[in-house]
Amino acid sequence: MNRNCRLSIDFILLSLCASISVFADPLPSWNDTAPKKSIEAFVEKVTTSGSPDFVPPAKRIAVFDNDGTLWAEQPMYFQALFIFDRIAQLAPDNPSWKTTEPFASVLKGDIQSALKGGEKSLIEMTMATHAGITTKEFEAAVTEWLATSRHEKTGRRYTEMVYQPMLELLDYLRAHGFKTFIVSGGGIEFMRPWVEQAYGIPPEQVVGSSIKTKYEVRDGIPAIVRLPEMNFIDDKEGKPVGINQHIGRRPILAAGNSDGDFQMLEWTSAGEGARLGLLIHHTDAKREWAYDRDSHIGRLEKGLDEAERRNWVVADMKADWKKIFRDLD
Amino acid sequence: MNRNCRLSIDFILLSLCASISVFADPLPSWNDTAPKKSIEAFVEKVTTSGSPDFVPPAKRIAVFDNDGTLWAEQPMYFQALFIFDRIAQLAPDNPSWKTTEPFASVLKGDIQSALKGGEKSLIEMTMATHAGITTKEFEAAVTEWLATSRHEKTGRRYTEMVYQPMLELLDYLRAHGFKTFIVSGGGIEFMRPWVEQAYGIPPEQVVGSSIKTKYEVRDGIPAIVRLPEMNFIDDKEGKPVGINQHIGRRPILAAGNSDGDFQMLEWTSAGEGARLGLLIHHTDAKREWAYDRDSHIGRLEKGLDEAERRNWVVADMKADWKKIFRDLD
Repeated sequence: MNRNCRLSIDFILLSLCASISVFADPLPSWNDTAPKKSIEAFVEKVTTSGSPDFVPPAKRIAVFDNDGTLWAEQPMYFQALFIFDRIAQLAPDNPSWKTTEPFASVLKGDIQSALKGGEKSLIEMTMATHAGITTKEFEAAVTEWLATSRHEKTGRRYTEMVYQPMLELLDYLRAHGFKTFIVSGGGIEFMRPWVEQAYGIPPEQVVGSSIKTKYEVRDGIPAIVRLPEMNFIDDKEGKPVGINQHIGRRPILAAGNSDGDFQMLEWTSAGEGARLGLLIHHTDAKREWAYDRDSHIGRLEKGLDEAERRNWVVADMKADWKKIFRDLD
Repeated sequence: MNRNCRLSIDFILLSLCASISVFADPLPSWNDTAPKKSIEAFVEKVTTSGSPDFVPPAKRIAVFDNDGTLWAEQPMYFQALFIFDRIAQLAPDNPSWKTTEPFASVLKGDIQSALKGGEKSLIEMTMATHAGITTKEFEAAVTEWLATSRHEKTGRRYTEMVYQPMLELLDYLRAHGFKTFIVSGGGIEFMRPWVEQAYGIPPEQVVGSSIKTKYEVRDGIPAIVRLPEMNFIDDKEGKPVGINQHIGRRPILAAGNSDGDFQMLEWTSAGEGARLGLLIHHTDAKREWAYDRDSHIGRLEKGLDEAERRNWVVADMKADWKKIFRDLD
């Protein structure tokens, strides 16, 4: 079958999907407030053939931050909790950790002291727990941790703390020919083992921070080994750089929740034609957490100050979302 | 529309495509020799539901080297020819080049002397011609060069020197649910402006060598600026590393033509289940070029020595391909 035939069938498929979606609310967990209306208006104008804002399917790139945008991030990034648990797990093989900071504090359960060294400590703990093994071994460690751990406040698995309204948004966009990507400050290989099942986003559509790796053949068996050296930090100014490196074209939709996403929204919005910038504002202390300008995690200040001027949509979790977390099976 | 609906429609689409392709030869430019049969047998077994070798569509990742595999690479990588032309173009703004090597030799048309400095000279020339501008400016330079240059031997545009049998293979694989990627030692941003039109491969499915970039906002307008520093070399051991970084899963099919592709084929073949490694052997001095063990470009020695033992398919361009270059419009 040639490419033209494939394209025609894809076109029929897209038209069919568009027709079906007329009949059901594609975003049932969103209240009928301004953010939902803005999202729907944007999708309609970029997908309506003949509209001056029409964007062909290949260019419908949508990027989503992960922590605090697609799943929760309190009381601390879940990857940090993985690091602490992994330090405890690896401690028997690393007896010196008992007397060496920041590991000693982690082993005593004193996370606050462990984090006193700032980014340097965090990177040191990341290297000690994420490097020196193959990518396959690391994937197994992440998968096992997610299967056996529960969030201290909700009692849910971490992968059950993904936001139902955002799952609907991802599905809605894909049904309209968008390609959805994660662009996160979190570790790319920490996300890849579970995001396909959780969000329907395949590993090749994940952009994140990474450490260097090396190809090795041991006893005839090739492996990719993780090295204790940072490769790329996909945060703030790094996000447009990561998007350019991995995707190679500018998104038309970007969603985030913190000032770490500012440049990603700025870069997206500055493209020609219709663009949508979306900020998730954590305002619901009862159903989730309420935090913004003064938070140690997911701090959102510049984004709130500039959203109106930049025509970014701010979704207020308390006012705009009927549900927070995904329905449990 | 929910994801299940989309998946069902995709399934119907794939089945439909498979049915259509029964009636026409999907690889008309391949002779009915062993390589074509091996490719068809592989695709049939990984796409036949119920087959012990069945691979679900999401895992049907196929990776292709570019230079010498999808398009020609003689008398020199086309990106090198772009570099030399760009040095001539930028020379008026860089008067010191007239007396500084390797630039002086390039300006005299003495490429052999310019390349005497080996990799160091080549990187120096790459930086001088690829960095210091925005990604948008670089894309424009590549696009303009491709539109206005012709190959000295064939008189064709470089993008007309893509291999017809490989275009058919890419289409055939995509019609069977494969996702096709380029994994090339060439510059990722040198390829992205034209590979979608030439091969049907979108920019986000291109893995390549890269220089570092930086996000900047000048007078309120954000841009990504190319820096004179290597970021990643996607060749030899770098290919599995680049695949892991960008794609995050192991391919089930890899095609290359030189020992720079050896590790990519090795990594692909070492995965569980059915795998296909394909080497394109340049044997046709009349219709293209004949070169392998002693070539300064696209040297193929280890691959030829080990192909049989590793069950890699070697396509002999002279014996197995009816056509070489793509049909001109």
